[in-house]
Amino acid sequence: SRELFVLTYGALVAQLCKDYEKDEDVNTCLDRMGYGIGVRLIEDFLARSAVKKCRSYSETADTIAQVAFKMYLGVTPSVSCSSAAGNEFSLILDKNPLVDFVEELPAERASLCYCNLLCGVIRGALEMVHLAAEVTFLQDKLKGDAVTEIGIVFLKNTEDKKHKRN
Amino acid sequence: SRELFVLTYGALVAQLCKDYEKDEDVNTCLDRMGYGIGVRLIEDFLARSAVKKCRSYSETADTIAQVAFKMYLGVTPSVSCSSAAGNEFSLILDKNPLVDFVEELPAERASLCYCNLLCGVIRGALEMVHLAAEVTFLQDKLKGDAVTEIGIVFLKNTEDKKHKRN
Repeated sequence: SRELFVLTYGALVAQLCKDYEKDEDVNTCLDRMGYGIGVRLIEDFLARSAVKKCRSYSETADTIAQVAFKMYLGVTPSVSCSSAAGNEFSLILDKNPLVDFVEELPAERASLCYCNLLCGVIRGALEMVHLAAEVTFLQDKLKGDAVTEIGIVFLKNTEDKKHKRN
Repeated sequence: SRELFVLTYGALVAQLCKDYEKDEDVNTCLDRMGYGIGVRLIEDFLARSAVKKCRSYSETADTIAQVAFKMYLGVTPSVSCSSAAGNEFSLILDKNPLVDFVEELPAERASLCYCNLLCGVIRGALEMVHLAAEVTFLQDKLKGDAVTEIGIVFLKNTEDKKHKRN
């Protein structure tokens, strides 16, 4: 049952909002925590999903959406490729179970990425299968967007990564 | 899937350990957070479980173990009544899924009740159905005990509660 998880996640975000005044710091902290979770969760994922090695970024993005999201959050985002180079993808969520109990962000928390833990989880899990990626929220229903959209940019090599970060 | 929840819970406890030096403060904070969760979770529980009103403390304890634990944690603790007055119960867990990824408590955190959130959840949920109770860990496998045991003391009225607390 997901409700206990969703409410516990809410308690975690609330605690971080107490700890850090700036939304950016909460977002960073959630991403970092998520990373640590992803690094550990990947083993469980590979064992239980029995997915084969993905042969393309596109296949990887589909697996995240159709297998991992389904398994851990019970929803299946739609996937679209958003770059000619074929390394940028969007996961689009019509329904985000993590915010089931959240009505809206308080005005003073307008820059909070409430679900930023998920970005870290994806990033950490991908890194364990030797895929560097940048994962961020591009749209968020909690902020009034029509959908929730998570962007994944696969970084082809270390140089790409440095380039992206600068 | 429970793994993401269990790892997220671990991140929450780790954050509180950063925030508070004293184990007692972490325990109190987890219990308080759990209370807030229980107060909200009860509605989901009553809606989805369709349990009828319990007619005794014993029936209530059984419902917590057999329906609520099963629903939210996927395990069913055994229940024993531990007072002649019939208001004290123990939930005994052979396996506690919340500690799946925890090997042992660090030496400097020997007094941490890692799963104390659960006590708060039970207390909060019971309060919403007009049952005052004190809920605490009596034994904990993480601390070397043979089983994990959660004690529930139903407080018959406000006077009992005051008495207990003093």
